[in-house]
This record gives sequence, structure tokens and C-alpha cells, in this order.
Amino acid sequence: MPLSYFYVFEFYQKNLLMGKGRLEAFSDGVLAIIITIMVLEMKVPHGTELASLKPLLPVFISYVLSFINIGIYWNNHHHMIHTAKHVNGSVLWANIHLLFWLSLVPFVTGWMGENNFAKWPVILYGIVLLMAGFAYYLLAHCLTASHGKDSTLAMAIGKDRKGILSIIIYAAGVALSFINPLLGLAMYIIVAGMWFIPDSRIEKKWKQELSNK
Amino acid sequence: MPLSYFYVFEFYQKNLLMGKGRLEAFSDGVLAIIITIMVLEMKVPHGTELASLKPLLPVFISYVLSFINIGIYWNNHHHMIHTAKHVNGSVLWANIHLLFWLSLVPFVTGWMGENNFAKWPVILYGIVLLMAGFAYYLLAHCLTASHGKDSTLAMAIGKDRKGILSIIIYAAGVALSFINPLLGLAMYIIVAGMWFIPDSRIEKKWKQELSNK
Amino acid sequence: MPLSYFYVFEFYQKNLLMGKGRLEAFSDGVLAIIITIMVLEMKVPHGTELASLKPLLPVFISYVLSFINIGIYWNNHHHMIHTAKHVNGSVLWANIHLLFWLSLVPFVTGWMGENNFAKWPVILYGIVLLMAGFAYYLLAHCLTASHGKDSTLAMAIGKDRKGILSIIIYAAGVALSFINPLLGLAMYIIVAGMWFIPDSRIEKKWKQELSNK
Amino acid sequence: MPLSYFYVFEFYQKNLLMGKGRLEAFSDGVLAIIITIMVLEMKVPHGTELASLKPLLPVFISYVLSFINIGIYWNNHHHMIHTAKHVNGSVLWANIHLLFWLSLVPFVTGWMGENNFAKWPVILYGIVLLMAGFAYYLLAHCLTASHGKDSTLAMAIGKDRKGILSIIIYAAGVALSFINPLLGLAMYIIVAGMWFIPDSRIEKKWKQELSNK
Repeated sequence: MPLSYFYVFEFYQKNLLMGKGRLEAFSDGVLAIIITIMVLEMKVPHGTELASLKPLLPVFISYVLSFINIGIYWNNHHHMIHTAKHVNGSVLWANIHLLFWLSLVPFVTGWMGENNFAKWPVILYGIVLLMAGFAYYLLAHCLTASHGKDSTLAMAIGKDRKGILSIIIYAAGVALSFINPLLGLAMYIIVAGMWFIPDSRIEKKWKQELSNK
Repeated sequence: MPLSYFYVFEFYQKNLLMGKGRLEAFSDGVLAIIITIMVLEMKVPHGTELASLKPLLPVFISYVLSFINIGIYWNNHHHMIHTAKHVNGSVLWANIHLLFWLSLVPFVTGWMGENNFAKWPVILYGIVLLMAGFAYYLLAHCLTASHGKDSTLAMAIGKDRKGILSIIIYAAGVALSFINPLLGLAMYIIVAGMWFIPDSRIEKKWKQELSNK
Repeated sequence: MPLSYFYVFEFYQKNLLMGKGRLEAFSDGVLAIIITIMVLEMKVPHGTELASLKPLLPVFISYVLSFINIGIYWNNHHHMIHTAKHVNGSVLWANIHLLFWLSLVPFVTGWMGENNFAKWPVILYGIVLLMAGFAYYLLAHCLTASHGKDSTLAMAIGKDRKGILSIIIYAAGVALSFINPLLGLAMYIIVAGMWFIPDSRIEKKWKQELSNK
Repeated sequence: MPLSYFYVFEFYQKNLLMGKGRLEAFSDGVLAIIITIMVLEMKVPHGTELASLKPLLPVFISYVLSFINIGIYWNNHHHMIHTAKHVNGSVLWANIHLLFWLSLVPFVTGWMGENNFAKWPVILYGIVLLMAGFAYYLLAHCLTASHGKDSTLAMAIGKDRKGILSIIIYAAGVALSFINPLLGLAMYIIVAGMWFIPDSRIEKKWKQELSNK
């Protein structure tokens, strides 16, 4: 059996048999739909004047914040799954669990935007982001558990300080929203800023790995 | 002709020429959309108080149940198609038939949720799940028929006791809903629990197959 | 340079560089969305009785017919593009042109269903199907033009009698709808039945081609 | 290590490890959804007469224009990303930024169509297209920056005169809309016409590159 067969087979196995490809395709599909249907919450106004857009401003701000958040999740999900070498049943479900919380983002975005950042909508928005953050943390740990402590992925994710910190800031944001929802909103924006840069830990490890070869 | 050509060609043929890739892509697309547009049934409430979310509770519960069900279908579909070596015309249509019944899930989810699990909506929800279960059973049998009785796929699916059992429990759920819709709902939840674990039969066969090589 | 490089490169070139993959992905995406958002036209009824579903019956019938039609397009598109060896600019636009007419299907399905197969909605439904049929015919000819008259694809499509016949029956259906819309509807159903079987001409040519190798 | 391994690995690396594939898949998903949900802005009319479609005419014209615009973006995006050899973090974000502006197209299409091309809707439509044009320009420059000035991509894009010209015409269109919105609309149609043909610069460079090998 020629060696080349082995490599092609491994390529085949890694990307198709183990279903990483479909996990990515399904996640991409769900995230693409979430990010796009949020725009449907911005109802076309009846007037034709510039002023008729004014009531849509908080809806638009909510939309921008959620768009960035979903963009961040897509970006980091993309980096994490690429580093993964295989996926198993628990990873598939951890991924669906993450998508579940993210699927609620259009609903809470709409509620928050249409009510001009009122207390309860801002709290619920934070809770959904908090749960999504927790689900992402869970997914990262399902992946590292199946790859072993010494894998590129495990070392790249490390202690996942950024993930834990996000969850703490989200929780603080939810608590602060009871005092003033704008404080809560500020917390959510801080987390978004923190994650805006794609997960450089993983990118760095990749480059190391490749240059070692 | 070098052997490596043969393997690359076979890889090409299996995954692209035979269209398994597009069947997966199209199914992923439809399932991703179904799972995501269901959230549009949760209409953003007008009030800003926590209490204004209360009427949405049954809608939310229905959403969670349907989300899990579509997640299960995606998961098992994913395992089954991966084990398949080729697809033909009847498989393509059996797949579209399955997607048809699943596409009705958002409608019945909305009707059931908005009416607080009233009798007829719960019955219709069960009928749609029953038909989807039957369509999945059909798809499994179209696949095994074209792969032969001695194929990995056929052995993995076996007598498909789980598939047949699901259909029976769904039928029981529909019947019980005439007495009390909550009994029917309980049956649907039992089936979801039963399938929650990805099809271990196929996963097991895979590992056997791979280790035999 | 080893031969195996050539084959891998060719594989790469055919499927990725020439963008067949993305044409398929984009088309799959659009068709998956079209087929799924049509269900949003079936508005969840307010009542909880079985009778409250009755006004939805024509909407449901329209949905089934359109679901089958989009399924047929996906199926045949899938077969045709797989046989194609490369795509160029005119093919990309011919494909977008086809998707344009298909994107109008949810609108005409909704209008026809909500108005119980009234004259003008049935006529417009037929015109959209007629234009989609014509766009598919155009796409087939853009593809054969770029592949040459002696290519597998050109021979497989042949004189495209089925495509021309469909357009004629659709035109007849539109004309007959002025007399009685149900006659028009019958014509549309006949064309759907005619195409239900995936394009066996292409499948046959494939098998011949493969066995000749 | 056989050479063939190297080529397969390179293939793997270029298309999967570097995530070009997922960038394409996510973009295809978002663009497919944008192009398809726009049709939801065309609300099914209540009447069954041909006349009941008349108020939908400006909505339909807006839909056609936006469909062509999104089609152009998909087409050019497709050509540009194919020429790219790798993507990095800034490219991913430049891409999400482009998708953000394009995601606003259904909203402005709806506002413009429902108000029969009134001044402010036409201005806003132009601003969104202008920003999308600018975002595409940014994306092109992020890509050329990471590929080097002497790369195929950089040479293919060149000074991007067409991109800069589009932005100028869009700006002119926005300004002219203050005088007469139909003048603005004419400008937007001119840009669409200008881009209708896929980016022949890149296609030409490809062919050169391939024939040089």
C-alpha cells in the first residue's frame, strides 16, 4: 500500500468521516441565519422622512451589538473547530447547545431594541449572552477532554481565562442592570471588545506547530 | 496508472460525483433554517416587565422541544449519511420527503405553543413527528436497499428497532392526546430522550470497521 | 513531477478553483431557504379546533406543490452541475437568473394559496414556473455551449425535449387558467409529475462513462 | 516522505486549515439568506385581481435591483476569495464588516419600494450601497496587504479603479437624490451595470498564471 494512500485516507477520515465538515456547515448555516434574520426585527417604517427612522435607532444599536457578538462567536468557533482533530457525540451536542442559546439572540435583541434598553429586556439579553458564553466554555472543554491535555487544542485554549472572565463580566452586567440597564449594556460591550480580536492563542499555537514540522 | 490516482479518484467519486456532499449541504441548510426560523414564532412582547414574558412560556417550551427534535434528526442524519457509500435517485427523494415533514415542525410548534398545549395542536404536532419518523425509517431503508444486506450500513441499522419503536410511541402519543394532551406530550418527550444519544450502533460499527483494516 | 500531483491538482482545480463548489453551495443555500420560508406563509391559526385548519387547506396544497417543484429543481440542478466540468461567468449569471425566478415562488405560492386558486394568482404562479423553466433551459445551454457538443454533458442533455415540453405545457396552463384556473393547476401538476424522476439521461451517461474507463 | 504527500497536505492546508472554506461557506450562507428574505418584503396582496399587484410594482423593481446587486457581490466575492491563498484575522473581520452593510439591504429595499422611490429612502439605499462598496474595497485591500504587492491577487486587483469609481458614483447618486431621487436611482443602476460582468481582471490573471505553469 503506497504511503500516499494513507495520507489521502487520513485527510478523508479527519474531515469527512468524523463529520467535522458537517458540524462546521450546520453551525455556519445556523449562525448565518441568526445574523441575518435579526434584520427582520427592524420593521420598515411607514413615513418617508428621515425622522421616521429615529424610533428605529435603539433597534439599530441592538442589531449592531448582536451582529458583532454573533460575528465573534463565528470567528472563534471557526478557529477552535479548525484546531480540533476529531469530534464525538458529546461535542456535537455541546455545539447544538451553544446554537440553542445563540438562536435566542434575535428575540432578545428585538425586545431590547424595541423597548429602548429598558431594565428587563437588558437583563434577559445579558442572561442569553451569559448562557451562550457558558455553552461555548462547555464546548471548549468537551473538545479538550477528547483531545487530551497535551494536544495543540488543549494548550491553545489553556485555562480559558478569557472565557471565564467573559462569564463573570456578563453576570456583573446582569446584576448592574437592576440598578441601571445602561451599566449592564456597558458590560456587554466590554466583553464584545475583549473578544473582537480572533483567538490569538490558537493562531499562535498553529504557527508554532506548523513551523516545528 | 499509479495506485494513488485510484484512491484520489475514489475519494472524489464517493463524495462529489455521487452527490453525497450536496445531499448533506442541502439537508444541513434546510435543517439549519427550520431550527432557526422557529424562533420567529416567539413574537417580541409589547410590555417591558418580566410578566410580559409569561404568556410566551408555552411557546418557549414548544420551541425547546422542537429544537431538540431537529437537533436529534440532524445528528442521526449526519451519522447515517456518513456511513453511506453512495446515494441514488430514490435516496434523494426519500431525503426530500423527510425534509418536507420536518419543514412543518415550525408551524405545528407555533400552533401548539400559542394555544398552551390544547388538544388538536398537540395531536397535529404528534402526527407531524410520526410522519417524520416514518420518513426517516423510509430513508434508512432506501439506503440499506442500495448498499446490500451485508454492508456496514445495513448491519449498523440492523432491524431498526429504535425507529419502529419511535413510530409506535408517537402513535400512542397521538391517541393519548385525545384523552389528555399532556399525556401525548409526555410520549413525544420520551421519544426525544430515547434518541438524544447519537446512534451508537453506527458509531460502534465504524470503529470495528476501522480497527479491522 | 509525480503523476499523482497532477490528479490531485486537477481535482483541486475542477472543484475549487473553478468555483463549481461555491456555485453549488450558494444555490443549495438559496433553494434551502426558498423551500423553508414558504412554510411561513402558513400563518398559525387562532382557534384550537381542527376546523380552524380548514381555511389553510388550499395554502397547504400550494405549499406541497411548490415544495415538490423546488425539490425537482434542486435534484436536477444537482445532477446537471455534477456532470459539468467547469463553470464560467455566463453560467454563474444564468444560475443567478434561475434563482431569481425561483425566489418568487414563495410569493406566488402564498398569493395562490390564500385566494383558493383564483384566476390571476394561478396565472401568475404559472408565469413564474414558466420563467423558471426557461431559465433552467438557458442554464443548460450555457453549460453545453462551454463544454462543447461532444461532451458528456451535451450528449446527456441532448435536445432537451423535456425542458422544451415543460415550457409548452406551462404556457398552455397559463392560457387555460383564463378559462378555468383548475385546468391550469392540472397542467402545472403534470409538469411536476414529468420531472419527478431525476434526470435519468444524465445518470445513464455517467454510468456509461464510468464503465468505459 | 513522498512528494504526493506534500501536495495533498498543501491542498488540505490552503483550503481547510486556513479556513478559506468556512469564510466562503459563511459568506455564501449570509448572502443566500439576504437575497432570499428580501422577497418577504413583497407582502402577498389581499385582492385576487391583476390590479391588486400594481402597488407592488415599485417593491418589485427595488427587489430586482437589490437581487442583482447581491448577485454581483456574490460573484465578485467568489472570484476574489478564490484567488486568495490564505486568510487572516483582519480579512475575517473585513468580511464580516462587508456582510453587515449587505445585511441592511433588505431593510432599505423594503423602505424604498414601499414608498415609491421617495427622497429619503432612496438616499439611505444609496448610503448602504456606498458603505458596502467601501467595505468591499477594504476587504480587497486587507487581502492584498497580506498577499504582498507582487502576488497574483494584488496584480489582479491592481489600483482597483472600478471599486473607487463605484464609490464616487454612489456618492454622486446620494447627492443627486436630494434634487431628484430618480437621478440617484439612475446612478445606482449605472454602478450595477458596471459590475454586472464578473471581475475579468482576476479571471484573466488566472488564465495567465495557469498557462505559465
